[in-house]
Amino acid sequence: MSTNGYLTDRLTPDNTGILLVDHQTGLILGVQDHDQNQVRRNAQALARTAKVFGLPVVATTSAPQGPNGPLLPELVAELPEGTPIIHRSGEVDAFEDPAFEAAVSAMNRPNLVIAGVITDVCLMFASLSALGLGYKVHSVLDASGTTNKLARETSLLRLQHAGATLNSTVGVISELLRDWKSPGGRGTADVFSSLAMPFYGAVTASHAAASNAG
Amino acid sequence: MSTNGYLTDRLTPDNTGILLVDHQTGLILGVQDHDQNQVRRNAQALARTAKVFGLPVVATTSAPQGPNGPLLPELVAELPEGTPIIHRSGEVDAFEDPAFEAAVSAMNRPNLVIAGVITDVCLMFASLSALGLGYKVHSVLDASGTTNKLARETSLLRLQHAGATLNSTVGVISELLRDWKSPGGRGTADVFSSLAMPFYGAVTASHAAASNAG
Amino acid sequence: MSTNGYLTDRLTPDNTGILLVDHQTGLILGVQDHDQNQVRRNAQALARTAKVFGLPVVATTSAPQGPNGPLLPELVAELPEGTPIIHRSGEVDAFEDPAFEAAVSAMNRPNLVIAGVITDVCLMFASLSALGLGYKVHSVLDASGTTNKLARETSLLRLQHAGATLNSTVGVISELLRDWKSPGGRGTADVFSSLAMPFYGAVTASHAAASNAG
Amino acid sequence: MSTNGYLTDRLTPDNTGILLVDHQTGLILGVQDHDQNQVRRNAQALARTAKVFGLPVVATTSAPQGPNGPLLPELVAELPEGTPIIHRSGEVDAFEDPAFEAAVSAMNRPNLVIAGVITDVCLMFASLSALGLGYKVHSVLDASGTTNKLARETSLLRLQHAGATLNSTVGVISELLRDWKSPGGRGTADVFSSLAMPFYGAVTASHAAASNAG
Amino acid sequence: MSTNGYLTDRLTPDNTGILLVDHQTGLILGVQDHDQNQVRRNAQALARTAKVFGLPVVATTSAPQGPNGPLLPELVAELPEGTPIIHRSGEVDAFEDPAFEAAVSAMNRPNLVIAGVITDVCLMFASLSALGLGYKVHSVLDASGTTNKLARETSLLRLQHAGATLNSTVGVISELLRDWKSPGGRGTADVFSSLAMPFYGAVTASHAAASNAG
Amino acid sequence: MSTNGYLTDRLTPDNTGILLVDHQTGLILGVQDHDQNQVRRNAQALARTAKVFGLPVVATTSAPQGPNGPLLPELVAELPEGTPIIHRSGEVDAFEDPAFEAAVSAMNRPNLVIAGVITDVCLMFASLSALGLGYKVHSVLDASGTTNKLARETSLLRLQHAGATLNSTVGVISELLRDWKSPGGRGTADVFSSLAMPFYGAVTASHAAASNAG
Amino acid sequence: MSTNGYLTDRLTPDNTGILLVDHQTGLILGVQDHDQNQVRRNAQALARTAKVFGLPVVATTSAPQGPNGPLLPELVAELPEGTPIIHRSGEVDAFEDPAFEAAVSAMNRPNLVIAGVITDVCLMFASLSALGLGYKVHSVLDASGTTNKLARETSLLRLQHAGATLNSTVGVISELLRDWKSPGGRGTADVFSSLAMPFYGAVTASHAAASNAG
Amino acid sequence: MSTNGYLTDRLTPDNTGILLVDHQTGLILGVQDHDQNQVRRNAQALARTAKVFGLPVVATTSAPQGPNGPLLPELVAELPEGTPIIHRSGEVDAFEDPAFEAAVSAMNRPNLVIAGVITDVCLMFASLSALGLGYKVHSVLDASGTTNKLARETSLLRLQHAGATLNSTVGVISELLRDWKSPGGRGTADVFSSLAMPFYGAVTASHAAASNAG
Repeated sequence: MSTNGYLTDRLTPDNTGILLVDHQTGLILGVQDHDQNQVRRNAQALARTAKVFGLPVVATTSAPQGPNGPLLPELVAELPEGTPIIHRSGEVDAFEDPAFEAAVSAMNRPNLVIAGVITDVCLMFASLSALGLGYKVHSVLDASGTTNKLARETSLLRLQHAGATLNSTVGVISELLRDWKSPGGRGTADVFSSLAMPFYGAVTASHAAASNAG
Repeated sequence: MSTNGYLTDRLTPDNTGILLVDHQTGLILGVQDHDQNQVRRNAQALARTAKVFGLPVVATTSAPQGPNGPLLPELVAELPEGTPIIHRSGEVDAFEDPAFEAAVSAMNRPNLVIAGVITDVCLMFASLSALGLGYKVHSVLDASGTTNKLARETSLLRLQHAGATLNSTVGVISELLRDWKSPGGRGTADVFSSLAMPFYGAVTASHAAASNAG
Repeated sequence: MSTNGYLTDRLTPDNTGILLVDHQTGLILGVQDHDQNQVRRNAQALARTAKVFGLPVVATTSAPQGPNGPLLPELVAELPEGTPIIHRSGEVDAFEDPAFEAAVSAMNRPNLVIAGVITDVCLMFASLSALGLGYKVHSVLDASGTTNKLARETSLLRLQHAGATLNSTVGVISELLRDWKSPGGRGTADVFSSLAMPFYGAVTASHAAASNAG
Repeated sequence: MSTNGYLTDRLTPDNTGILLVDHQTGLILGVQDHDQNQVRRNAQALARTAKVFGLPVVATTSAPQGPNGPLLPELVAELPEGTPIIHRSGEVDAFEDPAFEAAVSAMNRPNLVIAGVITDVCLMFASLSALGLGYKVHSVLDASGTTNKLARETSLLRLQHAGATLNSTVGVISELLRDWKSPGGRGTADVFSSLAMPFYGAVTASHAAASNAG
Repeated sequence: MSTNGYLTDRLTPDNTGILLVDHQTGLILGVQDHDQNQVRRNAQALARTAKVFGLPVVATTSAPQGPNGPLLPELVAELPEGTPIIHRSGEVDAFEDPAFEAAVSAMNRPNLVIAGVITDVCLMFASLSALGLGYKVHSVLDASGTTNKLARETSLLRLQHAGATLNSTVGVISELLRDWKSPGGRGTADVFSSLAMPFYGAVTASHAAASNAG
Repeated sequence: MSTNGYLTDRLTPDNTGILLVDHQTGLILGVQDHDQNQVRRNAQALARTAKVFGLPVVATTSAPQGPNGPLLPELVAELPEGTPIIHRSGEVDAFEDPAFEAAVSAMNRPNLVIAGVITDVCLMFASLSALGLGYKVHSVLDASGTTNKLARETSLLRLQHAGATLNSTVGVISELLRDWKSPGGRGTADVFSSLAMPFYGAVTASHAAASNAG
Repeated sequence: MSTNGYLTDRLTPDNTGILLVDHQTGLILGVQDHDQNQVRRNAQALARTAKVFGLPVVATTSAPQGPNGPLLPELVAELPEGTPIIHRSGEVDAFEDPAFEAAVSAMNRPNLVIAGVITDVCLMFASLSALGLGYKVHSVLDASGTTNKLARETSLLRLQHAGATLNSTVGVISELLRDWKSPGGRGTADVFSSLAMPFYGAVTASHAAASNAG
Repeated sequence: MSTNGYLTDRLTPDNTGILLVDHQTGLILGVQDHDQNQVRRNAQALARTAKVFGLPVVATTSAPQGPNGPLLPELVAELPEGTPIIHRSGEVDAFEDPAFEAAVSAMNRPNLVIAGVITDVCLMFASLSALGLGYKVHSVLDASGTTNKLARETSLLRLQHAGATLNSTVGVISELLRDWKSPGGRGTADVFSSLAMPFYGAVTASHAAASNAG
């Protein structure tokens, strides 16, 4: 039996860093396996979560001067101040750029939460290399995306087999939160309502209105 | 042959008003026939479009103190200043509330662009009554939503048969814009990129980056 | 322009009767074009609505001793007391059974709300015959079902072309209700929450809890 | 109001003929808008129905020596004895082959039930030409198929607009049957159970077993 | 080879308890990966099953005074009398609330059947913690739900990897039943027909009618 | 009865022109209602068809210097030599650019086959204006595309109501071909196999191999 | 590395038996996770395959006098002569009926190919018990079916984890065939064309026609 | 922890060979689990990739004189010059043909990238045998296809369990590329834009136009 690190390596604000790989304006346009807007909002949610819990983030792009395009402006707007953004000149696997590996290493966190576009390349190689370097890896599938469903199904099983913990955006945030009474509770509610689970914003507004009127 | 009013009654900033019917926090949660977030964004897009082109808007809610909940806060934030919001106490068809009919009448616009949640009730009855009152009606289906696909398919055909012009959010905005060189061009680009067609934001950011680097 | 009878022949408790055609235990098992349970719940919703507004109902079955099976027991349980149930011995079109036509005629209602399984046969022929007899017909698609999507798409267009008003369960009930402050408001809320739109039950329970706690 | 011929031109064994257009082994392989096997079974069902009710059938192929391939062998096996099979040498619209038009004319039936592969070509042109020649046309969509969903959606609306009655396989058969107590009842049950609605075979077998054991 | 506990730890009325985690009126509204009503009915089915077989149940909620809302009233109505309902004040993982862990421990059952909304948080953490505490865990996916398909796919693989037995509502009940001739047979048939597999109610009613008539 | 122009205005090489509206590299990336590659291939198919039958074509772009991007290079490569490409500086409706209207008028063809990206704007307005100018219009839906399914469903019904003939790429080509024995037969087979119906290429290659070996 | 028995325990006519579990007329009607007809045809395909290769088969039913209904008549028609059909009186897991276990044991085959309706119960328990008894198990998913997609997804992973080889109908048959030149080649082609892959019948008929004409 | 060979056996132009199994004109027509054209384009992409990186390829067919048909002509056109094409006379598992095994062995590459039609037979057995022979295997699912979704889901898990690395076309190419600055960068961009990810062609053309204009 394994609980995939949940009991022994639970994600906490102290032991976790976030890697956002190649959420670029050109690449996002190729996401066809699920809702592009969800990928966008979930990547933003991870960035805003980093601010809520004080997590370090490293962002990276692949050849942003070329057709891949710049990092999503709406994601840039959510990154914690000072987040290193490593612009790779050609390395497909982000960890093959020494600047990226150094930035990750400087975070000094054993648990890495990774999302990337496209799933079967940018997320995949970053996750596999991180595992190889001894990190615990949470691959966040719904903040990643790819060009067809089979590429996604394939990636899930390859990542599972390689030892990554497959996770969702809300799953990661909830593991970090641990208790709604903690200081991060209010910020988490905002991340859920605005970005990761918009239905929750509607439920919350309904509740507030009824409570005030009650 | 009919061109459904396009040549003779084309939507312009001068002849068009917008009705937003029951986009409430409780009702939106029942939208299951397509993406709730898209309904939300498209309703916001119509509201922001009103500001771009100076169109009058009337918003309305059904029993917002009850389970239907308040108007979506993110939609309220987009409404033009001074937009009348008519809170109906129980009338299912918005036009059966004299305050709503008066507010619509006060807009003095022959063309009404209508969106509503849920499609087969709130959008339907407002559209049918408006047609009965002699308005030209554009029912905006992708800014509306309902609880199942059959209710939507049914509604499209009932609206078509009743003489409403079936339209999309982007179709309405483009008919109002008419020429990208007009003053509304910049605002339309913003509405498209942020709300009605988020892919367009990515395309635009890619273009800007390449142009600057070029 | 036509508003499909909405302004001139609006459904009211006084001018409307409901026909439930062949919702039998054997036939329901062939519904594959959308959720069987939704068909079931919507047929029940129409029956319970009849009690809320005092509408007459006629139910009918086709050869219930044979493989088509008996009327759905959960639907029988919802029928208003005294509802005639006409067991046809073989007529495919319910109106070809004189007992059925007499029962419908005895309702003395110009507007007929019709649902049936399967859509392209039982709902179709009853709707076409009723139109031929001079009734206004509302064909309720989401309380009906058939064996494949193409049979449904085909049926919608045939019914539209024949002059039936295509409607949804919730659309019919809302047109009958007209105002939530009317006596039928409470019963309608129950029909929506328990049968026609179960999400509404959750929204309502959330609202009640928040109001009480507020 | 129109009831699309149901009351005035109801399909009967005496006034109806069936046209099966280009159900060939090469063309069937391109059907992607719904289940190929359903198209196959429904075309067979129409052929077997012709035998049940004594309807005339004309079948036709387009260049069967070429890649379109021969008529489906399983369909040939169901055709009534003596059915003319018109092998066209190149005419896309079957009615442009005089031999086909003559064979149809020789049936001397005012109502034509037409199915064809592919929908937007073979079914479409045969239906439009038949309408032009003054026939009443029932286009049977679920015994036809095409290469993508948009081609089908487009075809439904073009056929509706042109005045064809859109129908399903089971809808056609049931209109012909009219009463299960008639001589065709037994044969219809067989067509439904084996071909047009296989679920009905299971329901029937369950019923028989329970009745015998009861 | 492993048979996932089936041979050595088969679920029996004596060794099994049920945990229902956060089936609340606010959270259920976010379920978008499959049919909300199915989640609802399956959670009810597990509760009613507990009564059929005399299994202990522990239910829990997360901040039910807030937007998550109260436990689904229709689920409360199905819980065995005396079922402890642990209202957590903020702990995301139910097992971090000592009252919950104590209630579970008091059941004294090595096998835990767990369902929860949302899948990737409430079901996930409860399942992982239960595994960590040494319980055998059956995670019941179709009595759980989440906000998108990727979150579900991710959760299935994470749970599988962690050692949970992935199961369905009907799978759990059938393993408990073991033999339809046992005392629980009648109650199981009711749970299947009314809640877990409504088609079975239609099949059963058809059978009863045919047997009586036979 | 109408046959939508099929008998009286059948598309022929002499009476038909093709308009390709805004198939640009930026806009194509927003197509989400069906397969982008199919839109691409079908637009190419129409262009190559023009060469097969000697039809005139007018292509147009909207602000190709901006984010909409240049005309698809693979489409440019298929255009008949000398095809006018009208680059509009901002007019949403192509017919509002006098150069476009002049180019269309210069074709001197009463029947216009129109495809455009996006469907509810570029195809819609060009089709409506062409109808207003007295052209017969075939709107080719599967060579067009838009951002969501509701925008498409809406557009189909608006175009139908306005009097456009809804058509598919293969439907248009087949109506032009009329007889496979005509000179265009060989070219049509190539267009089908390479672009409009790739399955046909496989069927054709299989047939050729078997014939040669036979 | 494991090759799941392919190299060491490849399915051959000598080492393989087939178990068909509860393909009954009542249960098949609940299959909603994929095409019921495909389940039916694939179960028939396995039975006919047994005759092609001389494999022993054991079929079984659960309470066939009750609502589950008799074994599918079309499957009975395909069973090899003398196939034992074990009618269980209530045991959910077929192996808990000694007569079934004896019949399986009498086959004396180390590899069991198992299909069952419903997947998460009938197929599942038979597969798990067979694994526990030391058999190699191939669970044939596309000859099995269940009531919802989540029940299927869950079952695949539970079976994988338990050590069953997940397989398809065509995969099993092809492993048995091994070489098209072997005596079973002709029979396999028939099984593929008529039952397991009907497209193959069309391809074959096209080929034959072209070869003869070539 | 395993990284599935990524760190220790990364795919490089020196250690990798490609096997293309049975991409034949008859078999491709049976692909129904995802887009046939995507399978086609991805198989072509792998072939063109071989030329970009100088990888050896072995192609094979099963009974190409029969209904399976010849190798796809568009794939033949992409194969590197001199690619051995092994025409098997009947062996289902390509490795059972000594000529195929010899050709693979002659490549002398420890890593085999394999795609095949159909997935559960041609890809499956080649992958399992290659694993048995000691090769590292990357099974490329989106360059393979089969007749139904369950056959695919089943195959993914069987391949995963057997030790194959599940991969996508773009994943394989990117692992080979490793750095866009390497000599293969330009060729890879072409493969992506023309075949494996057509959206990338649009993004690239937009970028080029904007850069030139910038």
